[in-house]
Amino acid sequence: MSTGLPMTVPLDGLPSRVRIHEVGARDGLQNEKSTVPVDVKAEFVHRLASAGLTTVEATSFVHPKWVPQLADAEELFPRLADLREQGVRLPVLVPNARGLERALALGADRVAIFASVTESFAKANLNRTVDESLAVFAPVVAEAKAAGAHVRGYLSMCFGDPWEGPVPVERVVGVAKALEAMGCDELSLGDTIGVATAGHVRALLTALTEAGVPLATLGVHFHDTYGQALANTLEALRMGVTTVDASAGGLGGCPFARSATGNLATEDLVWLLRGLGIETGVDLDSLVATSMWMAGHLGRPSPSRTVRALAGS
Amino acid sequence: MSTGLPMTVPLDGLPSRVRIHEVGARDGLQNEKSTVPVDVKAEFVHRLASAGLTTVEATSFVHPKWVPQLADAEELFPRLADLREQGVRLPVLVPNARGLERALALGADRVAIFASVTESFAKANLNRTVDESLAVFAPVVAEAKAAGAHVRGYLSMCFGDPWEGPVPVERVVGVAKALEAMGCDELSLGDTIGVATAGHVRALLTALTEAGVPLATLGVHFHDTYGQALANTLEALRMGVTTVDASAGGLGGCPFARSATGNLATEDLVWLLRGLGIETGVDLDSLVATSMWMAGHLGRPSPSRTVRALAGS
Repeated sequence: MSTGLPMTVPLDGLPSRVRIHEVGARDGLQNEKSTVPVDVKAEFVHRLASAGLTTVEATSFVHPKWVPQLADAEELFPRLADLREQGVRLPVLVPNARGLERALALGADRVAIFASVTESFAKANLNRTVDESLAVFAPVVAEAKAAGAHVRGYLSMCFGDPWEGPVPVERVVGVAKALEAMGCDELSLGDTIGVATAGHVRALLTALTEAGVPLATLGVHFHDTYGQALANTLEALRMGVTTVDASAGGLGGCPFARSATGNLATEDLVWLLRGLGIETGVDLDSLVATSMWMAGHLGRPSPSRTVRALAGS
Repeated sequence: MSTGLPMTVPLDGLPSRVRIHEVGARDGLQNEKSTVPVDVKAEFVHRLASAGLTTVEATSFVHPKWVPQLADAEELFPRLADLREQGVRLPVLVPNARGLERALALGADRVAIFASVTESFAKANLNRTVDESLAVFAPVVAEAKAAGAHVRGYLSMCFGDPWEGPVPVERVVGVAKALEAMGCDELSLGDTIGVATAGHVRALLTALTEAGVPLATLGVHFHDTYGQALANTLEALRMGVTTVDASAGGLGGCPFARSATGNLATEDLVWLLRGLGIETGVDLDSLVATSMWMAGHLGRPSPSRTVRALAGS
């Protein structure tokens, strides 16, 4: 990094600051084969915050049977109290009313729900239709809001679905409006299988804006399954999006596993934003060191290209 | 691929057609540890052409001592005569007058030279100053033109240099104008160490255009070392560039080697262009099958994310 690379050259029309919604500790570790000890997780979240990440999704209050990797949510979350006191945002995923109760009981003030745009994935992941799943989420969001919590709504399969193929933007708009009407403060548009390209990103953001969903409430969540995540992110920034989801070290998808989810690596995103002169508050060297440390715990190299490049420098 | 993904959604202002300059057989194999038998190389180039690639850089007439992987150029090139007769463009790299003579003797009608923009890399790679190296290339280009050959000029280290850091755009413009004045028909702007981000790409293309270098003569050659290649390519397309270099399967950079050159994978590029509705003539399934076949010969998985994703489908 001593060479001053990348050269900083801003592009007209992009935001001056981007908030990275770091998902490595939740979406990342949930999709790793290895289960990481709670001590390591607590240190991981602390290190991420220390690297300058202001929003670190911490865990999921899902039933341990479904996601054993995150079965220690009750033990982990209280260990992060110092960070919350310092102003770090620590959202947690809550799949249902029971999960919300568990999270609120521990003092969580930011929660996220996970909705599907497509019927096939709603059926596969939630065993409900899209409408049924939204009906289940409505009282969860209402209760969270009543408790004063900030609510993020994840929309999965916003671009393509492995069973249904391309997803019409109108379907995404419908679910987005429903989540907004429920009271969600923020929406995250997920390309769960990583198939989107830049024109589709623009079309979806345009449709959402035309439907009255404010850009300021939208985050984008791209997967790098086909190598498109950063190009898609650049297009979203060009549309005015200022919240981008990413996973430290690209956690959550082994590059050589067929089941790769391929989260966008936070380091690759930071390299782009640094080059564009967009503020993130993140110290790249510190983040890379954290991802290499976590890769050691997982026993495999990070799939982030930037981590691999800087690991050798 | 039966799901019709990615959805095709064009973006305003992009070209309707892009010519992919396939570099896997030369730039790719030159940077692989394993040396591939000439039979496999000949089949590789045939398969690439059969997948719809119209420009396949075939080999390099460099001294075998420097690039033993391509020491079989004399044996390989005549085996591709049927492709040339079918109209496939088969440029070959020529490092100097001796290399040009060898290439012309075999009937090559498209050659490429490899210049450095920075003094440090000119010294390291060519053992000359930039000006000295250009003086060496001038008669090579003149002789190639006199023989009726098309000449491509590679410019390496156009964005950053491992010794010098960021490279001012004026330096690139200077070398580009010199190569143009020599008679180069086409220039390829190389981000040899993969550090560029999109704003820098725009700034360089703007500076070259302002200096009178026609966009139609410019190709871009991005490396994915920091994951930026496709975002940079999208920015170049937006500027009107219609020639993009890429390497089938991402050949030329092992993702876990520190020396990764990380050529942009042709498949990841084709996925983007397909999504944008930009014609390339390339059949993605056939290309993926070719890259998987070559990965078998090299004994390691392809670093292309699209190849890995489709290999499991």
